[in-house]
Amino acid sequence: MLNNQNTFYIVGSGPGDPELLTLKAYKVLSKADVVLFDNLVNRDLLDILPKHCIKRYVGKKPFGEYVSQADINELIAYYCTRYAAVVRLKGGDPYIYGRGFEEWAVAKQVGVRIVYVPGVTSMQGVGMWDIPLTHRGTSEGVWVLTGMKRDGSIASDLSLAVQSNSTVVIYMGMRKLSEIARTYVMYGKGDTPAAIVQDATKPDGRRVTCAVRDLVRCSREANMCSPAIIIIGEVVALNEAVTSFLVKRNVV
Amino acid sequence: MLNNQNTFYIVGSGPGDPELLTLKAYKVLSKADVVLFDNLVNRDLLDILPKHCIKRYVGKKPFGEYVSQADINELIAYYCTRYAAVVRLKGGDPYIYGRGFEEWAVAKQVGVRIVYVPGVTSMQGVGMWDIPLTHRGTSEGVWVLTGMKRDGSIASDLSLAVQSNSTVVIYMGMRKLSEIARTYVMYGKGDTPAAIVQDATKPDGRRVTCAVRDLVRCSREANMCSPAIIIIGEVVALNEAVTSFLVKRNVV
Repeated sequence: MLNNQNTFYIVGSGPGDPELLTLKAYKVLSKADVVLFDNLVNRDLLDILPKHCIKRYVGKKPFGEYVSQADINELIAYYCTRYAAVVRLKGGDPYIYGRGFEEWAVAKQVGVRIVYVPGVTSMQGVGMWDIPLTHRGTSEGVWVLTGMKRDGSIASDLSLAVQSNSTVVIYMGMRKLSEIARTYVMYGKGDTPAAIVQDATKPDGRRVTCAVRDLVRCSREANMCSPAIIIIGEVVALNEAVTSFLVKRNVV
Repeated sequence: MLNNQNTFYIVGSGPGDPELLTLKAYKVLSKADVVLFDNLVNRDLLDILPKHCIKRYVGKKPFGEYVSQADINELIAYYCTRYAAVVRLKGGDPYIYGRGFEEWAVAKQVGVRIVYVPGVTSMQGVGMWDIPLTHRGTSEGVWVLTGMKRDGSIASDLSLAVQSNSTVVIYMGMRKLSEIARTYVMYGKGDTPAAIVQDATKPDGRRVTCAVRDLVRCSREANMCSPAIIIIGEVVALNEAVTSFLVKRNVV
């Protein structure tokens, strides 16, 4: 059954815009025999697949229907022993909150060759809304956290993050907005600029900005929903700062 | 002079492997009139440029020759007022230690349209060495720091990072290895697994791993040099842990 010629590709599809796929991912998809794809994968990418390719949706919708990780692992083992090129296609990057390495371990156990193809991760999409993740002299670090830890918590690392000078980015945090706001207020940093960005790289993308203390109200008023990226730090206000500086000097 | 039809593209070329360029970046490069490119950009990508395209090297070699940021900014302003499609091509992602937003401000001042195209950032390349940045239950955060802050320091945020459960990633930190090791030892975490990965996505890439306390010796013995990514946390040892578990069960 075990075939060392078979390959399991762990591929990131990027943050949503299909053109943010890498050339390498394109090449892998165009010769795939099987593709197991996620909810966050742009369906336009399935057009790249050859006709014979088996396409299986194994997505997890936030707080909705899902295929369990155990079932996905079984499918990976099943297909990897039977097909030459099995692709696991995920939104963003498989090794940044993608559970990609759990699937790496499954393929390792099966004994097939494993190829990882990184993807542009979702937080990078906020750059399209003129928010850089780092900016010299303003924020020279980025701390990426999740609102969906296995134990359900976010608190311990967030308390450290609040004290840092780094930009704080939170994936899957839309149910933790009040906890996030409360932590910043507790450390006297409730005024820190924050943004929620939804579908950052797609034509229907949306962004709201406010002081971190107002995240809950701001999100509710704009009707923001998962999946979205939360970003907190002075970098959020940079574009306005630069623009108003230029306006004052009559440049723009 | 000011032409609103002109566009300034701030483009990430990815971590080194030319195939990790995005489709969007490929499209932008293939119709560029001017490209200002960095030291870390793979030269193979210049083959994509049309014949008429002006190519200017404006790289900063680590601790070596460089074109100053002020000079780069002047070049951007010069070309943006004269050419329709000016591309700033950078290694990795322009908004993660790429100083891309400083150049955004220059283009904003000139008044041209600005398009940002994110790139796979260098730290994601470590996934090709079987190091995931996050792994459920092991490390559910990633803290990205730089060894080259404007004020020369690394210390304050690193002390917080050491206390966290997040994977710590340090860009441009090869001159700070002893300071990094000392900080971890001071917090009783000298045994934390660490890796240095150089040219992660290229055929001649190299990786060394050790306890964080031994970073200096380990780096010297393997003759590692800049640019390299330093990664500290339990995720570094995961691949060995999984493999030895499978070996014990006679699976591989």
